Amino acid sequence: MKLFEDRILTDGVVAPGGIIKVDSFLNHQIDVAFLNEVGREFYRLFRDDNVNKILTVEASGIGIACITAQYFDAPVVFAKKSQTSNLDSDVWSAPVVSYTHHREYTIRVAKKYLTPNDRVLIIDDFLAMGNAIVGLNSIIGDSGATTAGVGICVEKGFQSGGQRIRELGLKLRSLAIVNLDGEGRIFFSEQDE
Amino acid sequence: MKLFEDRILTDGVVAPGGIIKVDSFLNHQIDVAFLNEVGREFYRLFRDDNVNKILTVEASGIGIACITAQYFDAPVVFAKKSQTSNLDSDVWSAPVVSYTHHREYTIRVAKKYLTPNDRVLIIDDFLAMGNAIVGLNSIIGDSGATTAGVGICVEKGFQSGGQRIRELGLKLRSLAIVNLDGEGRIFFSEQDE
Repeated sequence: MKLFEDRILTDGVVAPGGIIKVDSFLNHQIDVAFLNEVGREFYRLFRDDNVNKILTVEASGIGIACITAQYFDAPVVFAKKSQTSNLDSDVWSAPVVSYTHHREYTIRVAKKYLTPNDRVLIIDDFLAMGNAIVGLNSIIGDSGATTAGVGICVEKGFQSGGQRIRELGLKLRSLAIVNLDGEGRIFFSEQDE
Repeated sequence: MKLFEDRILTDGVVAPGGIIKVDSFLNHQIDVAFLNEVGREFYRLFRDDNVNKILTVEASGIGIACITAQYFDAPVVFAKKSQTSNLDSDVWSAPVVSYTHHREYTIRVAKKYLTPNDRVLIIDDFLAMGNAIVGLNSIIGDSGATTAGVGICVEKGFQSGGQRIRELGLKLRSLAIVNLDGEGRIFFSEQDE
């Protein structure tokens, strides 16, 4: 998505350790008008996949998922990273190692919010090692629902998550695939429209 | 907001310890069409308050804030509960004790996303003891910005947060003020429209 690539070039920041910071418009401050264009694009990419539910994981995925859900007229479910007193005890769960948080945690979805009739679009802001997406896909599989697709805002082309998700046979679409050259400058992988 | 009260009566669940569960439509699964009515109502309540930014805290507030922000044509900023490698080190912070998570944590907002020109609407799903809202308001004060108002989905009338926020002189509007009678049944405080 050219609009997304352009926004990364304008407002994204490369930090040490291969961190791509997009916190000025995507995952700390959120440009909601821009997010509407993102949601519209995800709809264009997945509108023929009979999506009836959108699944993401707290926290950064939630805003993107909610705005996108408006185009699909589907509810959002977000996986929780902690066992709170207002979460059912009857949950599907999966372990996830976080790249940005340097820790392992368990993601949980109450069983009643995923059913075998669901065709689920997974939405997230970043795809790096793919651990969160693999965990969400595992939860969908456990529930008997089907993963209809995976929509990512920023895929890191220099990490293995994209290959891993594609090898699972999932339909993955990333709005920008970011690579870094030898001097830490951003360039994008070519993609079909 | 009658629509919100009705939805609580239909789909809300009272759990031991005064927990009001609205996870089927608000903070685990999210009914995004319903959230649009919520956003429209917050706009009606705060449209004359010159709001130019919406502030919430991860995770449950983010979807509500993003949908609401569409009506104000304003960006969202969400405070983070952990120091991640993609968050600036130059932050405003405040300590918050969580009622549902039974722990204390620090919320953080990068300094560059709040300025003295900002008139900030705080949005959150629940108001119980008011700790998160007091923390967000303190961060806004530190930054030199102004709290234009506080929009809450579910205020617990049987806890002290509402009184605490009103005593700070803030314009607080809650879409439903929930009370529990002696048998744990829900009833709502009367409010002006």
